[in-house]
Amino acid sequence: MTARQYDVVVLGAGSGGLAAAFRAAAHGAKVAMLEPSALGGTCVNVGCVPKKAMWLAADLAERIALAAKLGFDVPATPALAWPQLLQRRQQYIDNIHASYRRRLQETGVAHIARRGRLLDARTVECDDGMRLQARHIVIATGSHALKPALPGAGLGGTSDDFFALQAAPSRVAIVGGGYIAVELAGVLHALGSEVALLVRGQRLLGGFDAELAGQLAENLRAQGIGVHFDCRVQALEQREGRIHARLDGGPGDATFDTVLFATGRAPSTGGLGLEQAGVALDDTGAIAVDAFQNTSVPGIFAVGDVTGRAMLTPVAIAAARRLMDRLHGGQADAHLDYDNVPSVVFSHPPLGSVGLGEEAARRRFDMVTTHHSRFRPMLQALGDGQGRTLFKLVCAGEEQKVVGIHLLGEGADEILQGFAVALKAGVTLRQLQDTVAIHPTSAEEVVLMR
Amino acid sequence: MTARQYDVVVLGAGSGGLAAAFRAAAHGAKVAMLEPSALGGTCVNVGCVPKKAMWLAADLAERIALAAKLGFDVPATPALAWPQLLQRRQQYIDNIHASYRRRLQETGVAHIARRGRLLDARTVECDDGMRLQARHIVIATGSHALKPALPGAGLGGTSDDFFALQAAPSRVAIVGGGYIAVELAGVLHALGSEVALLVRGQRLLGGFDAELAGQLAENLRAQGIGVHFDCRVQALEQREGRIHARLDGGPGDATFDTVLFATGRAPSTGGLGLEQAGVALDDTGAIAVDAFQNTSVPGIFAVGDVTGRAMLTPVAIAAARRLMDRLHGGQADAHLDYDNVPSVVFSHPPLGSVGLGEEAARRRFDMVTTHHSRFRPMLQALGDGQGRTLFKLVCAGEEQKVVGIHLLGEGADEILQGFAVALKAGVTLRQLQDTVAIHPTSAEEVVLMR
Repeated sequence: MTARQYDVVVLGAGSGGLAAAFRAAAHGAKVAMLEPSALGGTCVNVGCVPKKAMWLAADLAERIALAAKLGFDVPATPALAWPQLLQRRQQYIDNIHASYRRRLQETGVAHIARRGRLLDARTVECDDGMRLQARHIVIATGSHALKPALPGAGLGGTSDDFFALQAAPSRVAIVGGGYIAVELAGVLHALGSEVALLVRGQRLLGGFDAELAGQLAENLRAQGIGVHFDCRVQALEQREGRIHARLDGGPGDATFDTVLFATGRAPSTGGLGLEQAGVALDDTGAIAVDAFQNTSVPGIFAVGDVTGRAMLTPVAIAAARRLMDRLHGGQADAHLDYDNVPSVVFSHPPLGSVGLGEEAARRRFDMVTTHHSRFRPMLQALGDGQGRTLFKLVCAGEEQKVVGIHLLGEGADEILQGFAVALKAGVTLRQLQDTVAIHPTSAEEVVLMR
Repeated sequence: MTARQYDVVVLGAGSGGLAAAFRAAAHGAKVAMLEPSALGGTCVNVGCVPKKAMWLAADLAERIALAAKLGFDVPATPALAWPQLLQRRQQYIDNIHASYRRRLQETGVAHIARRGRLLDARTVECDDGMRLQARHIVIATGSHALKPALPGAGLGGTSDDFFALQAAPSRVAIVGGGYIAVELAGVLHALGSEVALLVRGQRLLGGFDAELAGQLAENLRAQGIGVHFDCRVQALEQREGRIHARLDGGPGDATFDTVLFATGRAPSTGGLGLEQAGVALDDTGAIAVDAFQNTSVPGIFAVGDVTGRAMLTPVAIAAARRLMDRLHGGQADAHLDYDNVPSVVFSHPPLGSVGLGEEAARRRFDMVTTHHSRFRPMLQALGDGQGRTLFKLVCAGEEQKVVGIHLLGEGADEILQGFAVALKAGVTLRQLQDTVAIHPTSAEEVVLMR
């Protein structure tokens, strides 16, 4: 059988894969993209996008409660017709799919709705036997949610199952303390579930500044979410149509309607023929890449979650675009700088962070100072809300360069981006302070810290 | 009569006056502050603070309408008990007053609840005849709303009267096209009034980027606000308990329940003895100051709205603090840099701006480029909302330095601050683009513009 010839073959049509395909096509390359399931990958289908839609709904629920206190004639905890919300969420996702399909048409990228596996450094075989050959193969197959190996784990779900929920479960356990766990906990609580967050460790959000993570745990508890540290799930058992969790620590054994594991994600490397093609994995099981997204095999590249580096949609996109700028756009040195990547956890309230936490900064720099602002945003104050904001700056060195910005509170999700630009540009505390505040906002507190 | 002796006497206890008094006291100075009315001036009592409270209520009204579309069991246009809202707004303001009183106690600043006038460069006389002497006198008496000189103008109110409203008027005219006009129009429309915006000129928000101002006018119209350019109010007449407006242009003559003038503010320089003390005014009637807030009389200084420069609370505060750092803090060169002051108009949606508009940039720089992002934020898309966002960058020169950032849309109020730091630090378009996006947010669109 003759193989079809392309300049670039992309495995996977998540954010990174699509970005690679479109950017390569923009540079004039002939591109095929293999993806057996929905376009947009985790982000669009079972990640950022539906998550944000649910977060926005949860945010509305909280604001309606505040509105009731301010004098609006609305119930403080209105009923929500989930099917209507889910239909609109799906419509939004369908629109994204449609826009991808339009761009595929416009750019001439061939979308092949099949799974592919590497035969060698130039050849991919589809699961129907068709073969493709290309100078450049990009692996962008993403990652998937894991369940822990414990008895009865099958009774629990993952974030994928969260997105399949048709109503708020009465009593739900979220297992995990990472960003997905706190996001699911916040949304389900705001939409009416009784939520227990079962965390194996001593804190939330390992890797983020510890003080902010502590404040978030306080905020969650103030809202009425059960946050249990040092709590290990031993087993799940079915009991009268519900799920009984045997717990070591935490609230002791307990029964839930739904249990969701948010205990990690793994790079999706299975069935790709990596071994046959000689593509090496790192010791976490991700595809090993250098700073230019090169794998161990010349001509094969990898971007996004499958590389295990900063599993974030915009990172995958940025890495993919720069890779194609390098391979097909004549920009020999193009590559993504993985330093100072900002990220936001869509908890309630959201938590945004760029640069180093205090602990990490103290390990790396001299003369580390921290600066805090704690306040209640005006809407919360007007409506007697629970929401408290904690902003924190970490500065270092003689110049007091800003090396970490950590924001927990209403609006943190939108506030952070500009400060991330400033931090990456190397601004000092003095430069922050010399910028005139915008009043009255939450964001102004970042430049008013002394 | 012996005069009481101080290091600093401050006339006025608005944001600038309070900032001057507290900063001087922090440097060890003996300070008196003269203010016959409420602490906090325009901002706290009839400006930023109650405005933002009303804006937040209006924002809630809009979100409740979206929530109804998403499946929440709430009325799309719920009734609002204004007295309850106003009571909470007043409570918020009372809390600010209380915190100022605490700080006066703590810092030892003498608050004299009297009006003062200058006798000479060192002496202020209170309206009860008491005299104060000081090395430094700071004038921070702010500004006040104007009504135009036209027949029946007394039938109309100003923003001060807006804050006295006890319910949304059925039919209201806002006269003016500046930031106060669009703010009042947006709030009253969202809270149920039928609003006509009567603008003498051809556009909204002179001084802001014209393209954004045009998009804002479109947004207001899409919401159902009547935006009438080239419309001059000739006279107001009382007719059967309502106000008949004779209009040249616009909708022609029309009748309203309430007419509010937002046609300008003037520096409050009356009755201060400026002439007697020899303090010069500029040709707009504001107190003339140099870059260090010095007036024409050595020992007399002015900050804030009374100087007519960038009438913004944070500007008054920043100028006052730096003045006191210079006079009493040993920082000989301290002064406020008035360049690149960011500001936000709390319209619906909000409009934020820092640096130069496109027109101004083209007059000043070569190689000006502009970059646009137009989109519908996710919440608007989910709820079939009218809200459209327009972000615009203005870059200049070989390096493509970012010289203007203009944001119109949900979240612009919180997004701008960090980008203002970055712009003031001199970032280039490339540096913006090299910062990884935060997904899914509105803010990320600023770094994704090409």
